[in-house]
Parts: sequence; C-alpha cells; structure tokens
Amino acid sequence: MFKVKVYTTLKAGVLDPQGSAVTNSLHHLGYEGVEDVRIGKVMTLTINSTEDKIEELVKEMCEKLLANPVIEDYRYEIEEVVAQ
Amino acid sequence: MFKVKVYTTLKAGVLDPQGSAVTNSLHHLGYEGVEDVRIGKVMTLTINSTEDKIEELVKEMCEKLLANPVIEDYRYEIEEVVAQ
Repeated sequence: MFKVKVYTTLKAGVLDPQGSAVTNSLHHLGYEGVEDVRIGKVMTLTINSTEDKIEELVKEMCEKLLANPVIEDYRYEIEEVVAQ
Repeated sequence: MFKVKVYTTLKAGVLDPQGSAVTNSLHHLGYEGVEDVRIGKVMTLTINSTEDKIEELVKEMCEKLLANPVIEDYRYEIEEVVAQ
C-alpha cells in the first residue's frame, strides 16, 4: 500500500484569479504586506500497487487526470505504508 | 521578504466529495488500485514583513481567512527570500 501526495501549481505567467481574490481579501483585513498569492492543490491518494509499478502509475494518473499539463506543473511524493 | 507555503487539508472524518469524484474518475480510467483520494490546498504567499512578526502574521491569516478551522487542518512553511 502506498500513500502518494500530488502537488499541482499553476505555471508561472498563468493568471490566478483565486489567488488575486485572496490577496484582495487579505488587504481588506489589513495585511498590506501580502504581495502575491498563488493557489494550488495537494491530493493525498491511498493506492494498492506494487513497488515496481507505483511511480509509472502515478505519472499516468497525473498526466491523464490529476494535473492539467497546459496550465499546471505537478510533483509527487510516494511513501510506502503498512496496510491498515 | 518571505515566501510562505500554507497547506490546508480536510480533517479526518470530514466528507470529501471532490476526493470521491476523483476516485470514481480514476476507477473509470482503469486505476482500480486507488482506494482513497483527499484533496487540499497549497497556497504560496509572498509577504513583505520582518522576521520577528512573520510567524504571528501567518497564523493570524490562516485563522481568519486561509483555513476553515471547523473542517480543515493547516500547516505552513516560512522561507526568507531575497526581494526581487
């Protein structure tokens, strides 16, 4: 059993309306020092697989569904865990 | 100048409809080994502050806006960067 963390972030230069909205809200709350906010996702997956296949599996899932390769970068961390 | 990463994740036991939707989609794509998916956010903030104030500032922003303390846990990483 594997615990996999997939981090997706918008590529540099891609507009981040959600980040801009958070920046404005923080300014309204008085946090003027905040210059920029970029928002991404962190997905924690529990996957039943074998050691030799897990990395390829994760790459495939990222490319096919979890990340949008046009506007997002992704990275992942794979950790073997004892099945509960 | 500081680069701060704030990670928010749903508390254990809190229903994650987005995670369930991703799990189902992965199953449809043939990735039957995926047992669970939990989705959280990673926010990267650029903040102009001083070393003695930055941590308190980040905690306040998390408690007031960036995380929902009722259903989310949060953690953060603070890194000093050279202003560009």
